[in-house]
Amino acid sequence: MDKTIGIFGGGQLGRMMAQAALPLNIQCTFFEANTDCPSEILGPVFSTKAENGLQQFINSADVFSLEFENTPLSDVDVLTKSKTLHPPRQALAIAQHRLSEKALFDELDIPVAPYKAVNSLDSLKNAVTVLGLPIVLKTATGGYDGKGQFVLRSEDQIDQAWMELGPAGELVAESFVTFSREVSIIAVRGQNGDVKTWPLAENHHHHGILSHSIVPAPNSADLQPVAQDYITRLLNHLNYIGVLTLELFVTSHGLLANEMAPRVHNSGHWSIEGAVCSQFENHVRAVAGLPLGSTEVVRPTVMVNIIGQYPKTEDVLALEGVHLHLYDKTEREGRKIGHITLMPNDSTKLTTLCRQLAKILPNPLSLSEDMTI
Amino acid sequence: MDKTIGIFGGGQLGRMMAQAALPLNIQCTFFEANTDCPSEILGPVFSTKAENGLQQFINSADVFSLEFENTPLSDVDVLTKSKTLHPPRQALAIAQHRLSEKALFDELDIPVAPYKAVNSLDSLKNAVTVLGLPIVLKTATGGYDGKGQFVLRSEDQIDQAWMELGPAGELVAESFVTFSREVSIIAVRGQNGDVKTWPLAENHHHHGILSHSIVPAPNSADLQPVAQDYITRLLNHLNYIGVLTLELFVTSHGLLANEMAPRVHNSGHWSIEGAVCSQFENHVRAVAGLPLGSTEVVRPTVMVNIIGQYPKTEDVLALEGVHLHLYDKTEREGRKIGHITLMPNDSTKLTTLCRQLAKILPNPLSLSEDMTI
Repeated sequence: MDKTIGIFGGGQLGRMMAQAALPLNIQCTFFEANTDCPSEILGPVFSTKAENGLQQFINSADVFSLEFENTPLSDVDVLTKSKTLHPPRQALAIAQHRLSEKALFDELDIPVAPYKAVNSLDSLKNAVTVLGLPIVLKTATGGYDGKGQFVLRSEDQIDQAWMELGPAGELVAESFVTFSREVSIIAVRGQNGDVKTWPLAENHHHHGILSHSIVPAPNSADLQPVAQDYITRLLNHLNYIGVLTLELFVTSHGLLANEMAPRVHNSGHWSIEGAVCSQFENHVRAVAGLPLGSTEVVRPTVMVNIIGQYPKTEDVLALEGVHLHLYDKTEREGRKIGHITLMPNDSTKLTTLCRQLAKILPNPLSLSEDMTI
Repeated sequence: MDKTIGIFGGGQLGRMMAQAALPLNIQCTFFEANTDCPSEILGPVFSTKAENGLQQFINSADVFSLEFENTPLSDVDVLTKSKTLHPPRQALAIAQHRLSEKALFDELDIPVAPYKAVNSLDSLKNAVTVLGLPIVLKTATGGYDGKGQFVLRSEDQIDQAWMELGPAGELVAESFVTFSREVSIIAVRGQNGDVKTWPLAENHHHHGILSHSIVPAPNSADLQPVAQDYITRLLNHLNYIGVLTLELFVTSHGLLANEMAPRVHNSGHWSIEGAVCSQFENHVRAVAGLPLGSTEVVRPTVMVNIIGQYPKTEDVLALEGVHLHLYDKTEREGRKIGHITLMPNDSTKLTTLCRQLAKILPNPLSLSEDMTI
């Protein structure tokens, strides 16, 4: 192998990074609590629980990246005494803190929903007065896939919301955004400053978990340049290297930034087959200091998550133009254990394929047998 | 992992099979002389040199396949006492013996160049008389990439040819075929008898080693159904499961079969990115008893071999729509150590990209800076 990339985390994102790295003769190593993780088959996993685990991990690779956005900054600080991390520590720190993130969006003139910092019951009450109801109360740190959130619809919920989330310390109250849909933009920035952007994904959630992404997002010609501009501002401001994701709401007032993820993203899994160069390969290229690949779409795709329980492999593979990605994880309610990419030769078949998947998947999420793409 | 496939051989073909198997939660194990082989990173390698190596390999997997067409039949016979091999032993035995292979082509009405069995100097002289000159003398077993062959152009070379190849025992003398180009067809047959065929590849060789393949082969609309018919006859006759390759000459009298390979093939590497489902994934699907994927072309491609010496990774990746596959092998003259797939958004760019590669590759083989695709 020519080079080794050390990755904080060892889940499916690390697994797919390592799969993309392999043909470039780039080996990955991982730093993960559970060494029996999806990435394990592709490289050594150093345990976050082992006494000398971090140092062994640091010794194991030439350059470092992450697939886990809650990577402790304290670990990063130990690492960066001797080695380099892409993306930069600052991007990680900001993405781990909703208030810092919103402050950055403000600084870069990237519109966000009105929000207020909340750190006491009083400030929550004040936020409700200023922003009006409904609001979404979120913890400033932690929380994903809908966890660490409370939707406040009436004033009599204030105490309950505070009881639930108050112990987390810093909170953000956000105006409830009326949006027509959620989209995400993924971009990559190379070590020479080159930026490449994939087309917007339209993301459909089910109880806070991504159900499926449609790419390119339908009717997004006007939105694409705006989103591209926003994410490019972020990448350049942060002197970012690697893949960055920005989640956005489509509203009647245009795009509003929801949050960023300093990593490859579930809504970019379609790119493994649907783009000339995937988010995983381009992330690896960027981290390794190689030229970026084309982010062009090869065919319109729908990416569908497999949550909690596996479908029968033979049922999925019998569908036309389908790609199955299993993460070698045990089944558990609400857990992302795989995904399916639909890439028929004619994009009008996407609806039929999604409807077929709705029958096949034990947990079809927001897919249904009468849906239309 | 859901299933394990044991593969005879552990070279780049095994590596790419295992890469395709991974997202289906299928693990591969390998049986290879050199355990420090390209497949090693993807699964356990059992040494053919170890005393109990074969038995350990047999114990390591549920179902078996091969990437090495010279897999000893004696090993297969030990295996098949307890486990199943796809493709069938008969296909392997025939492909390992040029005379048996030609007899099968004859039996199935698949045209081949006139040939004669040769097992003595006298029978060689007789073959020269019957077939005329020039002829290609080949060993019936062994030999690949132009090795084990002698082109006989005049009668005074007969003694030299016999001296060189006679010790091999059984030989075949073939009429020298005047062909306009060489093509190959790759097909896969599933356990339910389904057959799917990729488009013809036009293969360009340099001193007997594949330089590059153009897919779909230009001007091959008339040839495709004929080649497809031939390979389907072979697959069905052999009750074959997995990927089979048939190399053909395009002559003024139509297609003539050259030889078959009972495995995935170098001329099918383009399919990793250029087809909806690659030869590697479909082979794995077939061996695992899963439904086959679409063999449709996503974009016209050129696949270029990297022989002997690596180019600079950054030079290759700077080209548009390029995919690099390195096999983690040490450099050695004439050795296949990687390949490049060119997949620009506009196929008219293929010529330019090949010309650029001719500059970048230390060993450009039959690529040149003034070539035209």
